[in-house]
Amino acid sequence: MTERVGFVGLGRMGAPIAENILNAGSALRVYNRTASKTDPLVSKGAERASSPADAVTPGGIVVSMIADDAAMLAVTEGPDGILSRLGPGGVHVAMSTLSPALAERLAKAHREKGARYVAAPVFGRPDAAAARKLWACVAGDKDAVSRVRPLLEATSQGVFDIGVEPQAANVVKLGGNFLIAAAMEAMAEAFTLAEKNGVPRERMAEVIGKTLFACPIYQGYGAAIAAHRYVPPGFALPLGLKDVTLALDTATRSRTPMPLAHLVQQRLVSALAHGRADLDWAVLALGASEDAAAPMPDRAVKP
Amino acid sequence: MTERVGFVGLGRMGAPIAENILNAGSALRVYNRTASKTDPLVSKGAERASSPADAVTPGGIVVSMIADDAAMLAVTEGPDGILSRLGPGGVHVAMSTLSPALAERLAKAHREKGARYVAAPVFGRPDAAAARKLWACVAGDKDAVSRVRPLLEATSQGVFDIGVEPQAANVVKLGGNFLIAAAMEAMAEAFTLAEKNGVPRERMAEVIGKTLFACPIYQGYGAAIAAHRYVPPGFALPLGLKDVTLALDTATRSRTPMPLAHLVQQRLVSALAHGRADLDWAVLALGASEDAAAPMPDRAVKP
Amino acid sequence: MTERVGFVGLGRMGAPIAENILNAGSALRVYNRTASKTDPLVSKGAERASSPADAVTPGGIVVSMIADDAAMLAVTEGPDGILSRLGPGGVHVAMSTLSPALAERLAKAHREKGARYVAAPVFGRPDAAAARKLWACVAGDKDAVSRVRPLLEATSQGVFDIGVEPQAANVVKLGGNFLIAAAMEAMAEAFTLAEKNGVPRERMAEVIGKTLFACPIYQGYGAAIAAHRYVPPGFALPLGLKDVTLALDTATRSRTPMPLAHLVQQRLVSALAHGRADLDWAVLALGASEDAAAPMPDRAVKP
Amino acid sequence: MTERVGFVGLGRMGAPIAENILNAGSALRVYNRTASKTDPLVSKGAERASSPADAVTPGGIVVSMIADDAAMLAVTEGPDGILSRLGPGGVHVAMSTLSPALAERLAKAHREKGARYVAAPVFGRPDAAAARKLWACVAGDKDAVSRVRPLLEATSQGVFDIGVEPQAANVVKLGGNFLIAAAMEAMAEAFTLAEKNGVPRERMAEVIGKTLFACPIYQGYGAAIAAHRYVPPGFALPLGLKDVTLALDTATRSRTPMPLAHLVQQRLVSALAHGRADLDWAVLALGASEDAAAPMPDRAVKP
Repeated sequence: MTERVGFVGLGRMGAPIAENILNAGSALRVYNRTASKTDPLVSKGAERASSPADAVTPGGIVVSMIADDAAMLAVTEGPDGILSRLGPGGVHVAMSTLSPALAERLAKAHREKGARYVAAPVFGRPDAAAARKLWACVAGDKDAVSRVRPLLEATSQGVFDIGVEPQAANVVKLGGNFLIAAAMEAMAEAFTLAEKNGVPRERMAEVIGKTLFACPIYQGYGAAIAAHRYVPPGFALPLGLKDVTLALDTATRSRTPMPLAHLVQQRLVSALAHGRADLDWAVLALGASEDAAAPMPDRAVKP
Repeated sequence: MTERVGFVGLGRMGAPIAENILNAGSALRVYNRTASKTDPLVSKGAERASSPADAVTPGGIVVSMIADDAAMLAVTEGPDGILSRLGPGGVHVAMSTLSPALAERLAKAHREKGARYVAAPVFGRPDAAAARKLWACVAGDKDAVSRVRPLLEATSQGVFDIGVEPQAANVVKLGGNFLIAAAMEAMAEAFTLAEKNGVPRERMAEVIGKTLFACPIYQGYGAAIAAHRYVPPGFALPLGLKDVTLALDTATRSRTPMPLAHLVQQRLVSALAHGRADLDWAVLALGASEDAAAPMPDRAVKP
Repeated sequence: MTERVGFVGLGRMGAPIAENILNAGSALRVYNRTASKTDPLVSKGAERASSPADAVTPGGIVVSMIADDAAMLAVTEGPDGILSRLGPGGVHVAMSTLSPALAERLAKAHREKGARYVAAPVFGRPDAAAARKLWACVAGDKDAVSRVRPLLEATSQGVFDIGVEPQAANVVKLGGNFLIAAAMEAMAEAFTLAEKNGVPRERMAEVIGKTLFACPIYQGYGAAIAAHRYVPPGFALPLGLKDVTLALDTATRSRTPMPLAHLVQQRLVSALAHGRADLDWAVLALGASEDAAAPMPDRAVKP
Repeated sequence: MTERVGFVGLGRMGAPIAENILNAGSALRVYNRTASKTDPLVSKGAERASSPADAVTPGGIVVSMIADDAAMLAVTEGPDGILSRLGPGGVHVAMSTLSPALAERLAKAHREKGARYVAAPVFGRPDAAAARKLWACVAGDKDAVSRVRPLLEATSQGVFDIGVEPQAANVVKLGGNFLIAAAMEAMAEAFTLAEKNGVPRERMAEVIGKTLFACPIYQGYGAAIAAHRYVPPGFALPLGLKDVTLALDTATRSRTPMPLAHLVQQRLVSALAHGRADLDWAVLALGASEDAAAPMPDRAVKP
């Protein structure tokens, strides 16, 4: 793996992923809007690019990790955007959580230039990225996927192939994030029921985390929700709302009623209305406590 | 563990549990309303009792595994019921899923006779019971719990102590079953979203079962829901509805709004309305498919 | 209308109804658990009875207005209950809001004694009862209904015949109360949306009350909800919760999922959890304000 | 009222409104994308315009009735759009149901040109428009509102002033349409409960329409929903979904959880999934019947 790779977007997730790719032996050319964030990678041997286009090698591979649909559109199709330089044979691997509708649009735009758009959103937080423990869902043209798979493996503990339509990988990612939110709401209700009937929240969390639900989501979020511990924000509330809203938009477009997704979306909206934007998205769990007039942590109520 | 133990209720769960206790070395005296169900245990050395009371040794231990609150009340407080004979020093271990309100009432009734009521509901299906792989939640008087713990360990892979109020164990059990139903609804929505957007249900189930939710509930029910496979009924729909309804009753009594519990209850009610009573309770997942006009298996629609 | 009529239950609704019947020319024999409540009617010519049975003329008409199923059962089937004396040809008109299941049971019990049970629940508050402006829904044996219709007309502005099965009238009554609660929740959400977007709640209430929804429920409750005015309790929160819960129980028994009924039930439960039991049931509207972190009246939050 | 007025958008609502304005004595210059729709008005004396801009008299009044946000943006800000010619002193009265966010944007765009944007969405269907029985909600600059009020009165039975911010009128309109949808869902559940318990749907509709809810929405939609009569589409399903979705978007932007709005949105989405796009939006009521496995009309299921 000695090909030179472009990398655009060095935020909390992008930075450790780029470093993993660099460590795996690729030459790396990196761009970030706030240029100072490229310093650590440059000090390790990466080249600094002056624009998204400048990070691209025509016909090469470029990876992006961009916050949302609007920014992604600008970085890709805007002036000095990735598409202005990628050209025939190039592959753009998009690792962030974007709407399937945008993926479909970008896939078409890339094909028209002879390039390929591969969606490869990942499950995991920054610490998992640093530890090369992400899970990647990849979808797109088969040859393109084969070419970029080593990059994904350099930063993941597993890579799942979702097919040839890029947007399919985004659907899986949005579905997965919805499942996490749903599990949090379920625990919030169950723990509140326990609490109101004489069983400590922590005990309830422990029992289910050791038996029926012995998996990281229930154990990690379960402990946080039991203790009403919503700082530091491993995944901040507004990002969670963004993803659930993307899932609901996709649901509405595809005529898929999802009552549970609506419920968690409202929990997240209510948490924002209460000024909890700088807390972890698990703070949606306070909704169940409020409804039941159960004890609430002072900090979470007025952060 | 050589004490003689009474056992009342040899249904699909009770029979393997009683056998485990017998195999662990206790003398067993068993009662079942349909007497023929006692035959296998009698052939292995158990004694046959002619009534719940007849299964009881005054001052001894009696275990019950009875379908619902009404039957439990009859078996315990009715004529020839357990309480008519248990007496001072006796301990009644109730292993079925009952309402916390009934547990509280029975605990009081036992105390008034100098006996103790221990709630020890279990997670797991008949095959887990046979394999001694249940999880038990136990609550009640400390000495009583100590005395019966070996019986629970004889049939479980783990025993969780929930405190001195018997009803607390029932709350944990109801909360746990609610969490299972909630996970099923979440998967039903996520898989339908996937399906309507070009991702096979089975692929979605596989990805989440191998990554975020690598635990038996998501893997087992996930595969069933992905394939719309609701036979044989490991846990039949009416039993599932009974448990979720008990959870909601407990929620209403304790002033705990649980919107997600309401949602799954309605899915179960709708499934009953469609004549699916002889299917597994995972059939609640068809609700999401119906709402979205997604493909439905013929068999499940008209069983 | 000169027949002597028994009347059992002189609460806030029963007292004005009984007075209307007395004013219409019937001889009246009245019973109430707290005997002093019979004084006003006795001073106007009614006779005082010492028990429900004592209010009954065998073969005659007896009217009951009793708070809930449990009390109704005691007054009817208990010792010195109505059924102990009513006998062949007698007609029992039940005007309170009871479960259809109880109506069905009581209808059978009356038939077995040669008597008839007529359900005649009414819409309207005490002031409407005093003004003879109730709406009655009546159901039961045709001859029995014909016989008691003048009594209902003496206290109502309209009488609707719902058929020969008494419980049908209770279903209509529960459905009607559910519709009121649903309208309150809808207004609570719409007014909060208005408020958060710069439109005064009162203006929103006024516009819809003068146009699309020019009817008393939207106008009366609309003004109260717009102003967050929940005292005095025209219909107290616990009574509202009782009725919605009866509707949901009837729904579950008849396999009828009612998501909106579940939603309003949870709003009522949440209001109880917040200690609002002595407020009008329209206080369910605070749920929408709380979710949105919209301004809340001090009084309603901590009554 | 002799001022010349421009009118853009002669659809099912626009045509009768324009005719009312013409009949009230204004000179009218009309534009419609499909030019033939202007014929009836031209035959009655209106002038035909060749573009939105061409319908405008600089500094004059122009009325628009345009289907949705995207089309409205094109007609107003696009080439040959209203704003290209309206100029200082001009007033644009927008009578369609648009998002508050768009109203806010257009109000600013008009102010920047010295013109004024007045929002005046109306309640009522085409037959009410023809009969001059609409209800208008108007908001915007006071002088501008005064100037256009006679036009609104020429087509309405009542005009409500919602203040100086145009988007406020759109909020009231969206809130009102949400309330209609909520009432339909409530009736659908109540009628299904009645039906499953032996009370004919029509009887339930009649009782509530004559008593608690003696207003057009409950009487008109109530009769339709009771009979499952969803043709002809007085207000087609996709338009209803558009409006409820606009309400939800506004709710999310303003941090206002609206669980009942989510519920009706899902009913509408489910109806679309079942291919009912050409039916009246009251067809959302079939959701409650489907959930309960209650009888469904063949025609509605497969229109």
